[in-house]
Amino acid sequence: MPDADTKPAPLFLEDIFAGMKFFAGPYLLTEEAIIGFAKQFDPQPFHTDPKAAKATFFQGLAASGWHTVAITMRLLTEGGMPFGGGSIGLGAEVSWLKPVRPGDELSVETEILDITPSRSKPHQAIVTVRTATRNQKDEIVQVLTSKVLSFNRGHVPGVMA
Amino acid sequence: MPDADTKPAPLFLEDIFAGMKFFAGPYLLTEEAIIGFAKQFDPQPFHTDPKAAKATFFQGLAASGWHTVAITMRLLTEGGMPFGGGSIGLGAEVSWLKPVRPGDELSVETEILDITPSRSKPHQAIVTVRTATRNQKDEIVQVLTSKVLSFNRGHVPGVMA
Repeated sequence: MPDADTKPAPLFLEDIFAGMKFFAGPYLLTEEAIIGFAKQFDPQPFHTDPKAAKATFFQGLAASGWHTVAITMRLLTEGGMPFGGGSIGLGAEVSWLKPVRPGDELSVETEILDITPSRSKPHQAIVTVRTATRNQKDEIVQVLTSKVLSFNRGHVPGVMA
Repeated sequence: MPDADTKPAPLFLEDIFAGMKFFAGPYLLTEEAIIGFAKQFDPQPFHTDPKAAKATFFQGLAASGWHTVAITMRLLTEGGMPFGGGSIGLGAEVSWLKPVRPGDELSVETEILDITPSRSKPHQAIVTVRTATRNQKDEIVQVLTSKVLSFNRGHVPGVMA
């Protein structure tokens, strides 16, 4: 894995290929952050109340799955998917495999699965990427498969270059 | 649509059926909230900087798609999917159809598509639901198809009843 401080240079359509991989992390998730996110977006006892969470399906406080996705996105912007023009998603499929707990340190590994050039827009393609989010025990907690845009160098919409 | 102040009673496995629908909203999304979420989880200019956003793919500030999902989840907990035992997701598929802008008011409509009883766990089923998130112009901005758990009344894990 590359040094966490080294943000890779942006990659354009002509630079990428199926099988290419990227890494980012770790991101430390605190109990305070889990509760804060959940109070705003997913206010259910297993995400907001450590005591009440013990008597639930999760048997203890667990992060909202959408919080894990949001942290994954953060890591994608930090080198986990260094596409020139940004990470512009058309859609995604997510599976949550294990609960994320207070104190977990999350890292991402992204692999390019497929690159489909646009028929209507030259210099643009839809790229399918799969991002595995792991905790500090190297357990995969979430798999996210996304369809994102990639542009040829000098052809990012709105950017004069 | 039901009154926004009326939170429906929780529904259990014996209460639900394919075709059943739920509604919640509206949720007003401010520019400040869009930028706040994005700075934390999706720090890209089209989500964080109204001026810079004009010269991007989005041609103006747009909410992170993951922010739209998080707000959708919030609305699901507010009556958009009133399942007894909570909204426990195994996975989901999301498509973003239109940008969400500052000042947009989001509402959700959820429909139960399928109910598959668990083979290994009695009193439990995997329910497939589709949630359309609309803006104040009644345009669908996002479609989220989720697999969530439903339990028979009196059989929510960890709850003595």
